[in-house]
Amino acid sequence: MSSCPHGSLRIVGLGPGPLDWLTPEAETILAEASDLIGYKPYLDRITPKPGQTLHASDNRVEIERARLALQLAAEGKSVAVVSGGDPGIFAMAAAVFEAIEQGEPTWADLDIHVAPGVSAMQAAAAKVGAPLGHDFCAISLSDNLKPWSLVERRLKAACEGDFVIALYNPASKARPEAIYKAFTLLRTHKPAQTPIVFARAVGRPDERIIITTLAEAEPGCADMSTLVLIGSSTTRLIARTQTQPFVYTPRGMGVTS
Amino acid sequence: MSSCPHGSLRIVGLGPGPLDWLTPEAETILAEASDLIGYKPYLDRITPKPGQTLHASDNRVEIERARLALQLAAEGKSVAVVSGGDPGIFAMAAAVFEAIEQGEPTWADLDIHVAPGVSAMQAAAAKVGAPLGHDFCAISLSDNLKPWSLVERRLKAACEGDFVIALYNPASKARPEAIYKAFTLLRTHKPAQTPIVFARAVGRPDERIIITTLAEAEPGCADMSTLVLIGSSTTRLIARTQTQPFVYTPRGMGVTS
Repeated sequence: MSSCPHGSLRIVGLGPGPLDWLTPEAETILAEASDLIGYKPYLDRITPKPGQTLHASDNRVEIERARLALQLAAEGKSVAVVSGGDPGIFAMAAAVFEAIEQGEPTWADLDIHVAPGVSAMQAAAAKVGAPLGHDFCAISLSDNLKPWSLVERRLKAACEGDFVIALYNPASKARPEAIYKAFTLLRTHKPAQTPIVFARAVGRPDERIIITTLAEAEPGCADMSTLVLIGSSTTRLIARTQTQPFVYTPRGMGVTS
Repeated sequence: MSSCPHGSLRIVGLGPGPLDWLTPEAETILAEASDLIGYKPYLDRITPKPGQTLHASDNRVEIERARLALQLAAEGKSVAVVSGGDPGIFAMAAAVFEAIEQGEPTWADLDIHVAPGVSAMQAAAAKVGAPLGHDFCAISLSDNLKPWSLVERRLKAACEGDFVIALYNPASKARPEAIYKAFTLLRTHKPAQTPIVFARAVGRPDERIIITTLAEAEPGCADMSTLVLIGSSTTRLIARTQTQPFVYTPRGMGVTS
């Protein structure tokens, strides 16, 4: 395979919902690409420019999608791989580097650039206040490449460290029971009154926010479009008279000047 | 204090560096505010519109800054509180909610909205590849409201969970020794060959990226503008012939189709 020095690969995220969260860098990449590659629902959110080729693919074929993108870039195309959210957080960037590692030796020297973006946990946090205002961790429940024992180990460690926890992909098709198992574990390690947020489709027309407690949470509320936030021991609510409370985590131990 | 229904408070981040990472939502907020409040170096990055009032303040007076913002919003002003990065991640959003909790009872019912943004760990990750491609946690070393014992507890838990770790504020003035103590702890819990990234001022003219190992890392490389990334057991490098390697963390256990 010949490598053309003018080919490029950009890995870009659309943000969690509205294009109002798309950075100018990402917008430029989308506008200048010759070829756009992504899971079909993401490409459907883009209005292609004249002359652009769209390569829509199914879900769960990330490595094949990444290989196609690398092949096109090696042929001299200006390729944009499109995910949701931030491409570097539980999205396409890692899949592209896996494909590079397993693929043609020349692929690592292609002109490759990842554009950071807004991830789902950030949109969810902003919507309800500032639950990620202090130390936190992010765990994906969906990955069928990861044994459940590792998910359990990480959930336990996250409780031991008293982190705020952001759960991604809580109800994937491959592992629909994961969120129930996660909540069973969390309930043995965290207080019943720990604040919980189910943030579904934040910023989109079908947005739904549920603020509850670990004791009262119904794990089945989480579908594939939901980001789940679990508070630390200092995460708290601020009541409002007209609407749902704010949820936030103080910057320190809650002791402020 | 009388509350005017037309006042509003928006909490916005500029992203880690160039305005190329500022979302359209954040740009609109900055353009429409009557009053912009923030740490002076952040306000210096904004070109104010005619009629806008800028309230620049020193560092480490977050609560006073938040109170001023709330007072102005209660008086009917359209206030934008400006931080770097994502305001919800180790930035001003949590301070504003602390000030609401401690302040006038009417403040919780003001029109308050947090705009999500790109945080430093995301810019750093994108710059080097996809180190945050799998489960990770974010820990601030700077907060002088947090006892060191809690930092240690969280670092140990992060190692136990084999998370990728993003360290914010590794060398604050209040705690310059923190990064040395953190590395001493990490070296007893993680393999010597664990990839380490010191990502300084990503996207800015004085950007500097160091990719090394836990054994060889010099903690003093981290200054107040540095984000430190510490790999998990699966984080790895991909060599390139002309430049620094990529750093990435596979989506699962490194076993891919």
